[in-house]
Amino acid sequence: MRNEILHFNNVFIENTSCVGGKKESEGPLSAYFDMLEPDEYFGKDTWEKAESEMNTRAVNFLLSKAKLDYSDIDLSCGGDLLNQCVATSFVLKNCDLPYLGLYGACSTMAESLIIGAVFKSSNFAKRVLCFASSHFCSAEKQYRFPLEYGGQRTPTSQSTVTGCGAILLGDSEKCRVEVKEAVVGKIVDSGVTDVNNMGAAMAEAAVDTVIRYFGESNLSPDAFDIIATGDLGREGYELACELFKRKKFELFGKYTDCGMLIYDLEKQDVHAGGSGCGCSAVVTAGYFYDKLIRGEAKEILLIGTGALLNPNTVFQKQSIPAVAHLVRLSAR
Amino acid sequence: MRNEILHFNNVFIENTSCVGGKKESEGPLSAYFDMLEPDEYFGKDTWEKAESEMNTRAVNFLLSKAKLDYSDIDLSCGGDLLNQCVATSFVLKNCDLPYLGLYGACSTMAESLIIGAVFKSSNFAKRVLCFASSHFCSAEKQYRFPLEYGGQRTPTSQSTVTGCGAILLGDSEKCRVEVKEAVVGKIVDSGVTDVNNMGAAMAEAAVDTVIRYFGESNLSPDAFDIIATGDLGREGYELACELFKRKKFELFGKYTDCGMLIYDLEKQDVHAGGSGCGCSAVVTAGYFYDKLIRGEAKEILLIGTGALLNPNTVFQKQSIPAVAHLVRLSAR
Repeated sequence: MRNEILHFNNVFIENTSCVGGKKESEGPLSAYFDMLEPDEYFGKDTWEKAESEMNTRAVNFLLSKAKLDYSDIDLSCGGDLLNQCVATSFVLKNCDLPYLGLYGACSTMAESLIIGAVFKSSNFAKRVLCFASSHFCSAEKQYRFPLEYGGQRTPTSQSTVTGCGAILLGDSEKCRVEVKEAVVGKIVDSGVTDVNNMGAAMAEAAVDTVIRYFGESNLSPDAFDIIATGDLGREGYELACELFKRKKFELFGKYTDCGMLIYDLEKQDVHAGGSGCGCSAVVTAGYFYDKLIRGEAKEILLIGTGALLNPNTVFQKQSIPAVAHLVRLSAR
Repeated sequence: MRNEILHFNNVFIENTSCVGGKKESEGPLSAYFDMLEPDEYFGKDTWEKAESEMNTRAVNFLLSKAKLDYSDIDLSCGGDLLNQCVATSFVLKNCDLPYLGLYGACSTMAESLIIGAVFKSSNFAKRVLCFASSHFCSAEKQYRFPLEYGGQRTPTSQSTVTGCGAILLGDSEKCRVEVKEAVVGKIVDSGVTDVNNMGAAMAEAAVDTVIRYFGESNLSPDAFDIIATGDLGREGYELACELFKRKKFELFGKYTDCGMLIYDLEKQDVHAGGSGCGCSAVVTAGYFYDKLIRGEAKEILLIGTGALLNPNTVFQKQSIPAVAHLVRLSAR
């Protein structure tokens, strides 16, 4: 029998940072960002360079907040949604820092925390930089239509978060938040083919991972202050609630979704909510981390969700498989 | 001071498999494949589906050779060159196997072995499936020109290997090959902008990783039977030799490159040699593994090399950064 839960030893969050864009500055979590840039280009001349610049700022903020240099860090791992993950890899050019590139679609922050925590827990690294990003404009350009086209979107579609979250794993007496456990996701294909309904494509994978966690853990969902999926959005969230209900799995009102927290779904034009690697990355590095260090939450489960597709696979009539990685964050 | 070398405990290769295409069947390493498929489409109707089918066959061969089922494996990790790594992730749809998606360009097999070995070494997983692939046609379509265009290529360009290598990490008495040490690569940007000369873009990163390994290790390059970069090709190999020479670093004639081993550079129309995630993956899973289990080699260093770019970054006049991950394989 496979063990579903990875139990970590002495893996703590030393510091976090997050950078966002204009729409994020207008949302309910704006206070939790280190920087909100109104210029979508971040001072650069292309969307791709803008995303790299955003990520560079997030990493620099993190190093400066933690009063550390690249040489104090043993390993970095991260990824993004751009083809070949160039938004993250270009950040670390000639920074003299070992790097493992990841691709987990929008689950990348959770995947990065899991790999970082395994390295830290087993003393293969003393400090690990984990980060993930997405940018509305670079994602629209790559996955959907040129922005200038002004295409209408369906109500089930989500709005890619412009944001980069960075989390430094380490171990010092001052650390208040522990990365305690994790579950690695499986690739679940629910047969969804609608590229404008990623929430539906990812809901089953998220439910599978949560059920696996609680099936092996001795805890009840009631022991958690927040159980949050990454970016199912309103549509996927409702589907996940329905799936939990069918499995007679009670979540005690603790279940929410980062894609619904980051924007005001009534007032902001974001359809079903936020999405993208940056979504769960900034909500975790900003809002959740803040709640944990202030003692407003003691136990949080993040279930990073990712839809595994590229435009070709959709044009070739393939369904959209998904993955969901779970990470447990505990205040101490 | 950062430790450069990761030392693993009890990480062995239980079995390997590799599948290749027509050009690989005509090369000098054809005897080391489990299957060589003459049909470039692998019986499917698109190049992308062909690559997934190739990978599915490689994973199935591995499971059948090892007499195992998905439920006997704790974790899988891998990646490929296609946008959003769909060639690997689609293989594991509904296979009930935890999966971590990686993007390390052509260094992916080495990256996968490192992450797998860290999980295995620290008992977070008992068995890990590591795999990586590339396909000539899907890569040409995505990175260069449609095949039908029949574009001429420069002499420094390389030919993407159609191949998938899969390696099962575990620990049984029968295992003859150990994954002993590793060095995680750093992102090195040498300022190369020629997309038809990836070897030059990657040479410096490879040299950096090798020098870091021997700087910390007590071993001499002479202690190894083979020191192989992943896919520098003839051009990058010669550049790397020159860089080693300038650093007065003696390799005792042990240095070679998987991209030069897999094809006959004189007789086959492959320009500077092989490249792609599949290149070092099949050479390692096939040829190197065979040499180690037969006792023809006792110590091999694989330095998986990856060029981090996408077509946009090149069109936007950015240089091509590279990464190189090192893995030490030892016969026991």
